Amino acid sequence: MPAKKEKKTPARKADEKSAQGITVKKTGDFSEWYTQVITKADLMDYAPISGCMIIKPRAYAMWEQFQQWFNKELIPLGVKNCYFPLFIPENLFKKEAKHVEGFAPEVAWVTMGGHTKLKERIAIRPTSETVMYDSYSRWIRSWRDLPLKLNQWCNVVRWEFKHPIPFLRTREFLWQEGHTVHPNRESSVQEAHDILELYARAFEELYAVPVIKGRKSEKEKFAGADFTFSVETFLPNGKAIQGATSHFLGQNFAKAFDIAFFDKDGKKQLPWQNSWGFTTRSIGILVLMHGDDKGLVIPPALAAEQAVIVPIVFEKSREKVITATRELAKALTAHGIRVFNDERDYTPGWKYNEWELKGVPLRIELGPKDLEKEQAVIVRRDTGEKKAVPLAKVPDTAVQLLNLMQKELLAKARKFIESSIVDVKDWKGFVDALEKKKFIRALWCEGEGCEDHIRSKGDGAKCISIPFDQPKKVSGTCVQCGKPAKVQALFARSY
Amino acid sequence: MPAKKEKKTPARKADEKSAQGITVKKTGDFSEWYTQVITKADLMDYAPISGCMIIKPRAYAMWEQFQQWFNKELIPLGVKNCYFPLFIPENLFKKEAKHVEGFAPEVAWVTMGGHTKLKERIAIRPTSETVMYDSYSRWIRSWRDLPLKLNQWCNVVRWEFKHPIPFLRTREFLWQEGHTVHPNRESSVQEAHDILELYARAFEELYAVPVIKGRKSEKEKFAGADFTFSVETFLPNGKAIQGATSHFLGQNFAKAFDIAFFDKDGKKQLPWQNSWGFTTRSIGILVLMHGDDKGLVIPPALAAEQAVIVPIVFEKSREKVITATRELAKALTAHGIRVFNDERDYTPGWKYNEWELKGVPLRIELGPKDLEKEQAVIVRRDTGEKKAVPLAKVPDTAVQLLNLMQKELLAKARKFIESSIVDVKDWKGFVDALEKKKFIRALWCEGEGCEDHIRSKGDGAKCISIPFDQPKKVSGTCVQCGKPAKVQALFARSY
Repeated sequence: MPAKKEKKTPARKADEKSAQGITVKKTGDFSEWYTQVITKADLMDYAPISGCMIIKPRAYAMWEQFQQWFNKELIPLGVKNCYFPLFIPENLFKKEAKHVEGFAPEVAWVTMGGHTKLKERIAIRPTSETVMYDSYSRWIRSWRDLPLKLNQWCNVVRWEFKHPIPFLRTREFLWQEGHTVHPNRESSVQEAHDILELYARAFEELYAVPVIKGRKSEKEKFAGADFTFSVETFLPNGKAIQGATSHFLGQNFAKAFDIAFFDKDGKKQLPWQNSWGFTTRSIGILVLMHGDDKGLVIPPALAAEQAVIVPIVFEKSREKVITATRELAKALTAHGIRVFNDERDYTPGWKYNEWELKGVPLRIELGPKDLEKEQAVIVRRDTGEKKAVPLAKVPDTAVQLLNLMQKELLAKARKFIESSIVDVKDWKGFVDALEKKKFIRALWCEGEGCEDHIRSKGDGAKCISIPFDQPKKVSGTCVQCGKPAKVQALFARSY
Repeated sequence: MPAKKEKKTPARKADEKSAQGITVKKTGDFSEWYTQVITKADLMDYAPISGCMIIKPRAYAMWEQFQQWFNKELIPLGVKNCYFPLFIPENLFKKEAKHVEGFAPEVAWVTMGGHTKLKERIAIRPTSETVMYDSYSRWIRSWRDLPLKLNQWCNVVRWEFKHPIPFLRTREFLWQEGHTVHPNRESSVQEAHDILELYARAFEELYAVPVIKGRKSEKEKFAGADFTFSVETFLPNGKAIQGATSHFLGQNFAKAFDIAFFDKDGKKQLPWQNSWGFTTRSIGILVLMHGDDKGLVIPPALAAEQAVIVPIVFEKSREKVITATRELAKALTAHGIRVFNDERDYTPGWKYNEWELKGVPLRIELGPKDLEKEQAVIVRRDTGEKKAVPLAKVPDTAVQLLNLMQKELLAKARKFIESSIVDVKDWKGFVDALEKKKFIRALWCEGEGCEDHIRSKGDGAKCISIPFDQPKKVSGTCVQCGKPAKVQALFARSY
């Protein structure tokens, strides 16, 4: 209870109302639960243009944590950041046939500049292959110009007509897109793998989301790529979701954009290219994976505030308690913990609810009774586990708990995914497992007709991944058509 | 000379050609000099859409240095980063009358999504007041919600029809835009000043560009603001240029967007607002201010590479020299210097030219003769000063030289600006000083007719700033019309 009683003004009442908790269960109405968590935990708001969203500071801060981590990882790979224009002339956009076929239905077009109609309409980038490779064709002359490795952090627009879902499917989103050019196939393919590994580490080390590395099917690969690698995960509602992709473009764009180089012998050669991207969708995946009936749960590695201190204040002991919490905040900061000392004039109970809703990993309570015992009470967001810790040991304990929580969130998610995978031999078993919302592992012929048939089951049912981790020998028949199988693949309903 | 002789392949010849130096003098054809510096120093390239540009890694790295610095400065101010959509519905964009009047002629409009014509056309943000304040009106209810302080790093589009100049005037540019809401006028005005001070520090501490802080005239202020503060500087070609702006919006947008809050007494109040922005134009200013006839000069605080080591390699001593330069690079890194050890297979002379062109602050030469004497030769980019330094002392000396160079670049620019200012009493003197490309300081009535008359002199002639630094008492007559003066102001040709 705040010591100083305050009149409940209309404003105060509105404040309290807005902090109300999640009213549905995650195992109940999953979609409504997600909407409540992302709005009530203050991650986003809806924008006036349908399908667009506002990324609020609590979500943007996670994105910034990822950016910092990823930028550091790019340095040893020799990838440099840059910025290419938002605008792509229609004629450039159309140069690679499969690429334009894949993206044209989703492009937003600018046709007016000020009060003047444009001579040629301009595409807003849905991805930047075409605008970047036009420059690459001018920049690359010699083997000395290779490898060329650029990355940009930017917004992209895909004017989708499917039902938008904040973070997961929006008409504008943020991402990084890497675009590299290699003198030979081997180094290009190697890099596509290296980047996928980096994405897997980002999901596992930062987002605490276990992922499966693999190759996309022919129908699911990037428009214009030879093949697409992806990291995929499986969510508590029984749907798979793509995390990030690394595309080996082969020489398709080099041909379309006339990118060539003279090798050491003075011979003209076509280079090999990759593109790879990681988006703000990752934040939605994190919410879906770790959130619970009380709200958001943020893995410590991405949390803007890893710990929040709640002083329990009574008039008599106010000064002592506030002083102690401020000292504690300093000690935690000195231990490298991102901490917020919540001195706002709300009741402790109200604050507990708010920080649970917002998913802060650790809550540290400190009141006059704790001070007498020279202790504080630490509560873990994910498990609810509560323990009294001697004041002097709070920083070390907090560091340990944050590390533990990061690991245990990942382990819990991994256990869930592993328990969701079922091996299926025939089509009856396949349909049955799909209805039970399982992550299906089965032998497959990779036939396009087969893939169409699987997709016809609806609700996003499709081949999710042909995992890198394959049986030593694939022998058996396709789960759908019964012809000889080529690979073991994963199937599920999906976003 | 590289020890291993190599055939001059076509590729090698092309490489050497591309590294040719600046062919005009800065004091000669200033505009051609600028174009050569920004392209040959690899800062930018032209994009397929006229008026757009590609920001290449060497320029983007400077922007990232500024971003890191600015983000840290925002923390104590309580400003949080977020992301609002690129798209603004036409009806929102039109809500504040003066704002739309100012920006409408420059808006790029999206009218098609995929193959579908949109019902209402959509503005691409030229600035985000309208889309953000629409949300603010829903988010702000109580005094507890204030101050609200958000910032975003993003791209904006202004479809200008004037001649584009890379970095200085482009149809798309990058910036940060801060948008804050305050419960009272005082704290709003105070913040507008605080941010301007931050911008001044950025220019002076990072860009080594001295700036003048002041208020813009009525005709030059932001569309929708009560007043606009700016930092301005004056370039070697006799033109002034606006560095960054901080706008006090008063209650104009609060009225237009119906933003209101209940104060502590439960009374409904209109809040006060600011917006402020700093753009990639700053990079162009840096180039114009510090560059010389050899190319770019980057202030150490913003340089991606603060020092480059050039090993002077002969076959016999190759291994020893390379080993020594690698050790030196490690020692420099340990001293916090961003260093590049240039082991590429070009001649030392070729490398000297390239790094001079690209403006790296320090060049460190190390050859077999230096190794015998246990020394290296350090060359400062700005002064060309060259000195032999004992190897063990190179890191400390480099740190000192970088600090010194940062200070001296600023001091040199300041001296130039101060020497360019002339005090003018009457219209004849004004016109004369304008022709002599001076930075004119004069008394002014602030009359709009007067301002129009000054603008009619052409080539961007206008009131640049009404500096905060005013005479104790303004007494005298307006330099243009002879009526009683209200302020002392700065005038010049400008970008």
